[in-house]
Amino acid sequence: MAQQERAIRTRRAVLEAAATVFAEQGYTAATVADILKTAGVTKGALYFHFDSKEALAKGVLEVQADRPLPEQEVKLQEMVDVAMSVAHRLVNDPVLRAGARLSSDPIGRRHYGSAWPLWVDMLTEIVTEAHRRGETLSHVVPREIAEMVVSAFNGVQLFAQLETDLNEVEYRASVLLKHLLPSIASPAVLMRLDVAPDRGARLLADAGLVPAPA
Amino acid sequence: MAQQERAIRTRRAVLEAAATVFAEQGYTAATVADILKTAGVTKGALYFHFDSKEALAKGVLEVQADRPLPEQEVKLQEMVDVAMSVAHRLVNDPVLRAGARLSSDPIGRRHYGSAWPLWVDMLTEIVTEAHRRGETLSHVVPREIAEMVVSAFNGVQLFAQLETDLNEVEYRASVLLKHLLPSIASPAVLMRLDVAPDRGARLLADAGLVPAPA
Repeated sequence: MAQQERAIRTRRAVLEAAATVFAEQGYTAATVADILKTAGVTKGALYFHFDSKEALAKGVLEVQADRPLPEQEVKLQEMVDVAMSVAHRLVNDPVLRAGARLSSDPIGRRHYGSAWPLWVDMLTEIVTEAHRRGETLSHVVPREIAEMVVSAFNGVQLFAQLETDLNEVEYRASVLLKHLLPSIASPAVLMRLDVAPDRGARLLADAGLVPAPA
Repeated sequence: MAQQERAIRTRRAVLEAAATVFAEQGYTAATVADILKTAGVTKGALYFHFDSKEALAKGVLEVQADRPLPEQEVKLQEMVDVAMSVAHRLVNDPVLRAGARLSSDPIGRRHYGSAWPLWVDMLTEIVTEAHRRGETLSHVVPREIAEMVVSAFNGVQLFAQLETDLNEVEYRASVLLKHLLPSIASPAVLMRLDVAPDRGARLLADAGLVPAPA
């Protein structure tokens, strides 16, 4: 049991190290040796869990959404919460930063795929339920909204990251949602949504999901 | 005079070749030798215009917006037109595809910069004038709108390019604008805007701006 726990902790440490290296250097420039050095584990321990750089990248993408957020009374708030908590985590959490960078890399993603389908599926589910509850405007097509929000959000985080060092990502994500939501939510729902730039920070703190494990 | 014209044509041919290679391979993998082969000009001719790979990338970024679009009665239509004509050109024009790829490349852009500030400035100017004419809602901050539209559009094109081979970029750009514009334009202006997926194609054909020079 203790051994199994240690294995889980080692696996997570390796993933965090891989994320740190991928986020900083990108997939092509990163090496397993760099990741090994950052993780501070033995080569055997790393290869026990991940047998290649590709497997490490896939592992990082798989854990993008492994911290479920609390349910909300207004279902559409959960879409906002996914976006705003990602925005918040992009600033401090290498796992999210690596996920964004790996997913946008045209060459690397041929090897390991992308986190986008995972986010699209998650938002599609949320918007479908919001639609069923009558929270959305009638023309809304859930998957179309999900794909639009995921892609536009990714553009906003990329712009923030490349033009402003990520400092403004929460503010910019909030601006984006404030402009998109009036075309998605019914007016009565709209005025109940919390889309403030610090929504992600508050949500994660309340849910005991920060600070991220080092 | 004929000599000067030939020089301009050679320069353009080199830029188109550079764009083709950058769009396909990315900045890091591209070589001047590849570009030379694609351009079909002499090494001397290429180096007369561009003395490095970096200079070629900068040259490609500089010509992103060198085909001015026709003025429109409704000023905000010009913002739509910039977006929809870029969406259309992304499908067939390597110059635009290279511009998008180069601008999103976290490593390469340290060398040559990005096309985003150019698009942001252009849209800021349009939205500022639209605002002055009373076409926008009162809360609109022109530069904020410009940055949001440029970043969200870039995310949408990246998603279309990486997940769907760019086929859907015009449709997705149209969906994005349809959801953003009700938070930007006044209702009376909104209903006069043409945001159809084929807006870019029609606009460029009417202006005699297609097909792109080979």
